[in-house]
Amino acid sequence: MAIPTTPPSGLRDFLPDQVASRSRAVETITRVYRSFGFEPVATAAIEDLAVLQGLGGGENEKLIFKIMKRGEALERAAAEKSELADLGLRFDLTLPLARWYSKHGSQLPHPFKAFHLGPVWRAERAQKGRYREFTQCDVDIIGSDSWGAEVEVITAILAVFGAFGLQGVKVHLNDRGLVDQALAAAGVPEEKRGAVCVSVDKLDKIGRDAVIAELVASVGRPAADALVKTLLAEGGVAADPLDKIIAAVKALVPASTIAVDPSLMRGMGYYTGPVFEFRHPSLSGSLGGGGRYDKLTEKFGGPSTPACGGSIGFERLMLILEETGKAGGRSAPDAVVTVFSDELRARSLEVGAALRAQGLSIDVYPGTGKLKAQFKYADQKKAGYAIVIGPDEAGRGVMQVKALATGQEQALTLEEARALIAGKR
Amino acid sequence: MAIPTTPPSGLRDFLPDQVASRSRAVETITRVYRSFGFEPVATAAIEDLAVLQGLGGGENEKLIFKIMKRGEALERAAAEKSELADLGLRFDLTLPLARWYSKHGSQLPHPFKAFHLGPVWRAERAQKGRYREFTQCDVDIIGSDSWGAEVEVITAILAVFGAFGLQGVKVHLNDRGLVDQALAAAGVPEEKRGAVCVSVDKLDKIGRDAVIAELVASVGRPAADALVKTLLAEGGVAADPLDKIIAAVKALVPASTIAVDPSLMRGMGYYTGPVFEFRHPSLSGSLGGGGRYDKLTEKFGGPSTPACGGSIGFERLMLILEETGKAGGRSAPDAVVTVFSDELRARSLEVGAALRAQGLSIDVYPGTGKLKAQFKYADQKKAGYAIVIGPDEAGRGVMQVKALATGQEQALTLEEARALIAGKR
Repeated sequence: MAIPTTPPSGLRDFLPDQVASRSRAVETITRVYRSFGFEPVATAAIEDLAVLQGLGGGENEKLIFKIMKRGEALERAAAEKSELADLGLRFDLTLPLARWYSKHGSQLPHPFKAFHLGPVWRAERAQKGRYREFTQCDVDIIGSDSWGAEVEVITAILAVFGAFGLQGVKVHLNDRGLVDQALAAAGVPEEKRGAVCVSVDKLDKIGRDAVIAELVASVGRPAADALVKTLLAEGGVAADPLDKIIAAVKALVPASTIAVDPSLMRGMGYYTGPVFEFRHPSLSGSLGGGGRYDKLTEKFGGPSTPACGGSIGFERLMLILEETGKAGGRSAPDAVVTVFSDELRARSLEVGAALRAQGLSIDVYPGTGKLKAQFKYADQKKAGYAIVIGPDEAGRGVMQVKALATGQEQALTLEEARALIAGKR
Repeated sequence: MAIPTTPPSGLRDFLPDQVASRSRAVETITRVYRSFGFEPVATAAIEDLAVLQGLGGGENEKLIFKIMKRGEALERAAAEKSELADLGLRFDLTLPLARWYSKHGSQLPHPFKAFHLGPVWRAERAQKGRYREFTQCDVDIIGSDSWGAEVEVITAILAVFGAFGLQGVKVHLNDRGLVDQALAAAGVPEEKRGAVCVSVDKLDKIGRDAVIAELVASVGRPAADALVKTLLAEGGVAADPLDKIIAAVKALVPASTIAVDPSLMRGMGYYTGPVFEFRHPSLSGSLGGGGRYDKLTEKFGGPSTPACGGSIGFERLMLILEETGKAGGRSAPDAVVTVFSDELRARSLEVGAALRAQGLSIDVYPGTGKLKAQFKYADQKKAGYAIVIGPDEAGRGVMQVKALATGQEQALTLEEARALIAGKR
């Protein structure tokens, strides 16, 4: 059987420039979240299936990558025809955070402001721009029922977009409580409310008329008419706490656009109050979102703890940064030291180490090629300089330093080379 | 069923200080690897089982976390009693890198110097200090058969230990080629060579006499005597390329201790030449290791490509840094802005945003507690200052700024507060 060189469907390899861009973006997000007083949290990629299933993960629960039991436990499960999997890869960071907080909350400041960055996995049908492993960048405030928590989460995420120079981000805001009121007022029976929410949530994708048609088919004309006036109302009607959140965000981020969108649902079943979503004109989907989930930690047996959090769609953010030329992460060495011959390799290694000790980034050519191939290597690595130490230079205690942009070359001592290379960084 | 709040066996949660320490360590490792001209590479956590199995992963192949097929494919596999899993979590970073290089090598500089950081997973029996998810930090040079590649890999890893101020690291070095020669010279039959290597590799754990007893039982007295003179020779006998590697490393890292250790085996089946391991007096196991694996990429159908790489045992490194008090990662905010009342929350949020815009790290209290609880919060977060804005301060356009270490308090304007807080960072 041929061994595949491409990653499995929906999974990705990254080339050096991409890794550098992604790392730099993670650093920016971390810096901004920290500047708001959020503290870093980390959990393992693998959770018990009991943590991932049945706690309100919505459609994502169907997308869990399940890990098979091992050894005797697997054999026993196969013989008994019982569940073959016991673990799963996390599909979001909220459920692991709720578990983490339930375990460690008593040691933490109260309320607790967390940020949590890392990969999550979903067995989605692979399609363009949808991946089976992707990074999430969450901020959460656990233990506060104040609208101030929503304001901090939303403004921290807006500050991240601001730090990347991203313009035109719009915040859509709704309240799950208001949605429930509207559904009750329209007389929508309990068992149809999920379907109504799914229809209304598709407003941006399929348009107003198609949503109304779905509503009529689902709950009949009178209820649909009532819902059009509430969940599909243009502009919406803000009530406490949404109006306070909107006023504060507008005061804090003057360039921001934030408005009530009664059709906004967000998929997760664990949301209980305000929900929000970030949109950008260049994307059809969202650039992130979040909401209040006051009941989640009590499912782990602890006391009821109000909580609110948001997440940045890291992959979509990277897409926008790449398209607008703002991703630029590149890590070229300052210089490549060539290797004249195997006898002189030790000398090149010594020069490399000596320049590195002065704080420079120095690549010593690791192979055995001719000098021409080594200069090509230095070009490919986008190094500023190539250094040659032949028998003559080694004897005189100097090196030939060539600026790759201009082709200018000169024989320099170590100290002169250091000064030249450091000066042009 | 109670939902667990502890992570599954062998998996870990991290508290904020630990996450900060680990992130800082990853930054240091990245900086040092980059200073040698290594370029960052990333691959997904999940690989096809065909990539993980049968390519020389040794004992680790038995420890793969296997991911179940999904949907119809799973039903079909169950009905046909065929393989239920199609994917697995990577157990090291070398096999994914070899796949990655086989796919992308033609776009890269040649030779290619890669570094690759990330979690790997092994279904080990959980025990103290052994985890099922842990971080690896690899450097590799692909496409060079020169001993210079080993020198760059070993010195880059020693430079990482040096950057952490770690003293007393010793490099053990051996050559799989020499091992094969010694086994052949002693007349050890092919099928017993694996067992002999496993016995010899236990020298540090069970002692010389116990190893000799195992050898006698396995291959008889005459062959065991011959192996004692080669694989168990004290100090060993260096030959090309080991002697060149040792001389160069000693010249480049004067404080280093590097010596041939004929009993060093390293578990992976894919090693073909020099192998090495880093040890520290405070650890019974190794702090990292690596070797030459010239045949690995050809298993992916490409041309034979010489390669050599090494890995830092990140979890053990963190253990040493924590024990020696060198881990210190902490991210306290510069100040906590308290919230006097819900009416004045917007004012506190504004002050927080204004101070952040000046480059400070400012936590606005996100809850609704009394001022006393808010001061306790500021203490727990190890903030430098707490800021209070009551109705009086709000009216006068000032804020009370309290230094938490001294208790000293003064009414300051925004600009005065900024200068005070920034000065004491």
